Amino acid sequence: MERTEISKLGEFGLIKHLAEKIAVKHPSTVKGIGDDAAVIDIGEKYLLISTDMLTEGVHFDLTYAPLKHLGYKAVAANVSDICAMNGKATHITVSIGISNRFSLEAVEELYEGINAAAAAYNVDVVGGDTVSSLSGLTVSITVIGEVGKDRIAYRSGAADKELLVVSGDLGAAYMGLQLLEREKAVFESTPGVQPDLAGHDYILERQLKPEARVDAVAMLEQLGIRPTSMIDISDGLASEILHLCDQSGTGCALYEEKIPIDPTVVTAASDFKLDPTLCALSGGEDYELLFTVALADFDKLKGSPHFTVIGHMVEGAAAQLIARDGTAHPLTAQGWDAFFKNRGEETEE
Amino acid sequence: MERTEISKLGEFGLIKHLAEKIAVKHPSTVKGIGDDAAVIDIGEKYLLISTDMLTEGVHFDLTYAPLKHLGYKAVAANVSDICAMNGKATHITVSIGISNRFSLEAVEELYEGINAAAAAYNVDVVGGDTVSSLSGLTVSITVIGEVGKDRIAYRSGAADKELLVVSGDLGAAYMGLQLLEREKAVFESTPGVQPDLAGHDYILERQLKPEARVDAVAMLEQLGIRPTSMIDISDGLASEILHLCDQSGTGCALYEEKIPIDPTVVTAASDFKLDPTLCALSGGEDYELLFTVALADFDKLKGSPHFTVIGHMVEGAAAQLIARDGTAHPLTAQGWDAFFKNRGEETEE
Repeated sequence: MERTEISKLGEFGLIKHLAEKIAVKHPSTVKGIGDDAAVIDIGEKYLLISTDMLTEGVHFDLTYAPLKHLGYKAVAANVSDICAMNGKATHITVSIGISNRFSLEAVEELYEGINAAAAAYNVDVVGGDTVSSLSGLTVSITVIGEVGKDRIAYRSGAADKELLVVSGDLGAAYMGLQLLEREKAVFESTPGVQPDLAGHDYILERQLKPEARVDAVAMLEQLGIRPTSMIDISDGLASEILHLCDQSGTGCALYEEKIPIDPTVVTAASDFKLDPTLCALSGGEDYELLFTVALADFDKLKGSPHFTVIGHMVEGAAAQLIARDGTAHPLTAQGWDAFFKNRGEETEE
Repeated sequence: MERTEISKLGEFGLIKHLAEKIAVKHPSTVKGIGDDAAVIDIGEKYLLISTDMLTEGVHFDLTYAPLKHLGYKAVAANVSDICAMNGKATHITVSIGISNRFSLEAVEELYEGINAAAAAYNVDVVGGDTVSSLSGLTVSITVIGEVGKDRIAYRSGAADKELLVVSGDLGAAYMGLQLLEREKAVFESTPGVQPDLAGHDYILERQLKPEARVDAVAMLEQLGIRPTSMIDISDGLASEILHLCDQSGTGCALYEEKIPIDPTVVTAASDFKLDPTLCALSGGEDYELLFTVALADFDKLKGSPHFTVIGHMVEGAAAQLIARDGTAHPLTAQGWDAFFKNRGEETEE
């Protein structure tokens, strides 16, 4: 029998491949696979559904991620998918698979984080499943949300000349992960040594306890802005911009100098000899919102400290990064390392 | 630090323990944890949500369960939870965690079963997640459904003198499992021996490719019957009856002689020296519907070959099994083995 390794397709390749064989037939199904959440017409509003599965050793490492934080983060990541449709999360179900390595106290700690996040985001935990597994911990959460039919934002709605905007700042979650991985390696090679995490609160919190930007969704409504397209940044800015461009059928110009990066990320990146822009482009798990708005909305946005215009959409062109020196480079989801290595000294600015 | 083994609480104990700390706050949340599905008020109708997680080595054994059947069964089990609310499933999301042991072809086979079930039950696959895991296969499905506000059936609605009714027949899925486990053991001790499964189509199909009783839900509506309470039989008749009794605050009388058991199950049980009634009471995964109806509905039901009245509810009494000899025995979720062993010869009838 034929055997094709899944790694050959990659995560997006596999999902695309499987999705091709899936037909939707219900008249109520507005959008199936392919956006941050599925969209179902329930009358006055749209219902949104999204789901995420996290597996131990792949998505989280319990050596440094406390179970409580893991529970919080799992909920936040799901709520973020509803935010990415410009919607409001309302309910979640939580399924966990646990081996006998985990005690009742461990499950309680995980649920403390889940309940804390549910309270913070005002979502009800209405169901779930708690089952045994032969090894490790698996957390699978499904979130339900809602959005007004005149408020929904798909990945596919961006158009020529519209502004590309991001909430918050980028790259911090990735820097937090680098720090935790480094201290884990030190600990493993020299047991007994205490991890050196002092002064890195911001990047650690961004990695271990990220927040979904429900506040940003609310602010956009208050500002009278309806995003023309939207996605959340879970896999890195470059990858998410490419999703918006692909699904909207446009290109874009992303200005490196505009990408919002916290000063502590710049400092930490310097310690790790990493380019901060690379952290923002390729590092994931920031859970900020990336969206486009009509040019006419610029005046409403410009005063807000929560949003940064980082570029604009360009019809009939490729997605490009405009570097600080003004040179243009095709935006790709991966392979930035070589580009940044070639910049040499420049990246230390 | 304290360590309490989860096995000490058991599955239901753990869920109950965790549920105690979960508060629901949304006015739209009609029912959270504690029934076959959560119930959310979306205006004209109720939205239903349920989720199930299946882990390799615990819920399925790929030695004898083909991946295609596993995919089908996972969807059927979820759809069954919506049936158990007297509702209609409309959409599912499917998350799978897979180790590198699984090839693309294996995932495709799993999805063939998922898609076949989605087509059979007329549900749209609208989302999911496909992630790596360090070991084994995990399948987590969430189902969405709907039900008219005047049609919904909770576990808690049963009342004194109402009839206890079951769809189809019971115990076959359990007998199928016994057969598969026996042939697996033979195969493992004598490699190369072909499994002897001939003549056991019915019990094998009931175990490997069970169906959700969407037809039974439709029939009840056609018969003009609204069940007063309902649950699906995933854990064995005794356990499910106890759920209905507990949540409805009643007892019941279950008549052993009325329990519908297929003749092939009786024959197979005899081969295994098992009591067929025990298979029905304690064997799970039949996915039939157990429900109560008003006494006045008896005339509408009695002509149907799809439903069997197996007892009635009794207020202020315990849940009891009335054996063939007329003796009454307290119904318990487990521990029937001793009871049936003591019956000796009788059970061979």
